[in-house]
Amino acid sequence: VSVAEKGKVYLVGAGPGDPDLLTLKAARLLAEADVILHDDLVSPSILALSGERALLMSVGKRCGRKKITQAAIHDLMISSARRKLAVVRLKAGDPLIFGRAGEEMDALRAAQIPFEVVPGVTAASSAAALLETSLTDRRVASKLIVFSGHHAAGEMAKQGLCPAIFAEDATVAIYMPGDNLSEMASTLLRNGVSGSLPCVAVSDASRPEARYQACRLSGLAHLILPPGPRLLLVGRAFESVLGGGAPVETASLDGVLELARSIHLE
Amino acid sequence: VSVAEKGKVYLVGAGPGDPDLLTLKAARLLAEADVILHDDLVSPSILALSGERALLMSVGKRCGRKKITQAAIHDLMISSARRKLAVVRLKAGDPLIFGRAGEEMDALRAAQIPFEVVPGVTAASSAAALLETSLTDRRVASKLIVFSGHHAAGEMAKQGLCPAIFAEDATVAIYMPGDNLSEMASTLLRNGVSGSLPCVAVSDASRPEARYQACRLSGLAHLILPPGPRLLLVGRAFESVLGGGAPVETASLDGVLELARSIHLE
Repeated sequence: VSVAEKGKVYLVGAGPGDPDLLTLKAARLLAEADVILHDDLVSPSILALSGERALLMSVGKRCGRKKITQAAIHDLMISSARRKLAVVRLKAGDPLIFGRAGEEMDALRAAQIPFEVVPGVTAASSAAALLETSLTDRRVASKLIVFSGHHAAGEMAKQGLCPAIFAEDATVAIYMPGDNLSEMASTLLRNGVSGSLPCVAVSDASRPEARYQACRLSGLAHLILPPGPRLLLVGRAFESVLGGGAPVETASLDGVLELARSIHLE
Repeated sequence: VSVAEKGKVYLVGAGPGDPDLLTLKAARLLAEADVILHDDLVSPSILALSGERALLMSVGKRCGRKKITQAAIHDLMISSARRKLAVVRLKAGDPLIFGRAGEEMDALRAAQIPFEVVPGVTAASSAAALLETSLTDRRVASKLIVFSGHHAAGEMAKQGLCPAIFAEDATVAIYMPGDNLSEMASTLLRNGVSGSLPCVAVSDASRPEARYQACRLSGLAHLILPPGPRLLLVGRAFESVLGGGAPVETASLDGVLELARSIHLE
């Protein structure tokens, strides 16, 4: 079993929020790190696993308080490693799915700082676990497509690719879909995507605060979104979440789940 | 901290192979389970984390020795749970990305057996970590598309969707791509996908045996595939793996990696 090396940066996935879904390696690195630079989205119960001596710094750019630049994050990683500290750069979910790990690795390479990537459980996996629905159930889906909300509406409309991406046999997971889904919905509908496709907005999937709301694409503009970090899932795989098929069992989460059925058939 | 409940089935992701990439929850469930039904792809070093009393059974259908039917797997899960045993159904990677968890959950629902899904790190994340390359680097990729090899060539050719899926701004991860990539490559090239797209075949990404080989799509038919469980990555994000860009740092895996550069530019 390795230990956190001094003078090295670990780009670590914190997983979807539940500390129990950290990897063994991530938990050990958190306990041993001298410096932990974390995203805003990483939950306090995960940060509580850090060692007593560790210096924790939020370098998130989301919450809009004081802004930290990407260059400043690079400088913090590099200067900490040069002081021969063991540095964990802790990112929500998996470090190489969205976020700016690409730029951060380039900066570390340029500064000749050794680094290592520790993968984590990504949000789509924990949302599927909450919904007890396979993302790629071979009976209904042959592919999983992962987008960020930033890209979902605009680019696809431009290229006219909506029906190819939001196909009958695809499961689409949109990370950080934003608060206003009506533009995305109207773009998709205008470009020929079926209004009957099930959509599920999931927030805080792995945590006690988990919530989800389901509708069809034609009703997406009117969906009341659950609070918290959110993922939007679209595809035939989620038909049963709408209540048409097998019941969704939520034994382990009784009392915290609600299912809003705002079904708007075309 | 919960413990493994008797009479319940846990569909658990074993992650990409390295025991250190198990989640804390998966490791605890393995230690506590009475019965562990595992895929062939789950590594011995992970199974070694099971408790002394646990009954381990391989229910993999890959290696072609004696064949177990999907119905027999359902029966094993259900009958073990009815005997009030704590059952772990251990699956490589994440349980809800490929594999037959959809059918298994349906069978458990029909038999009214309580179950819970524990997500895991999926293969694409560990391959990206090995290559130190973001799957969705915003400078080159706006989406990640995950396929099984079974679906990759045939269906897309039929629908003429290749250029939409294998777009310049997409990262495509093909799970279980099979041994013969020449048909897939020719289908893609015939349908207008750029022959210059980087392709990387990765095997055993998270383990000491990790190997990868890179080429361009036009040379994919001639790629000598590394042995072991394999993932094929395609997209501009992997340009640097071909040697054109920043060097791929492999400090932690010195001596076990080889990079075959069979570049065949159009």
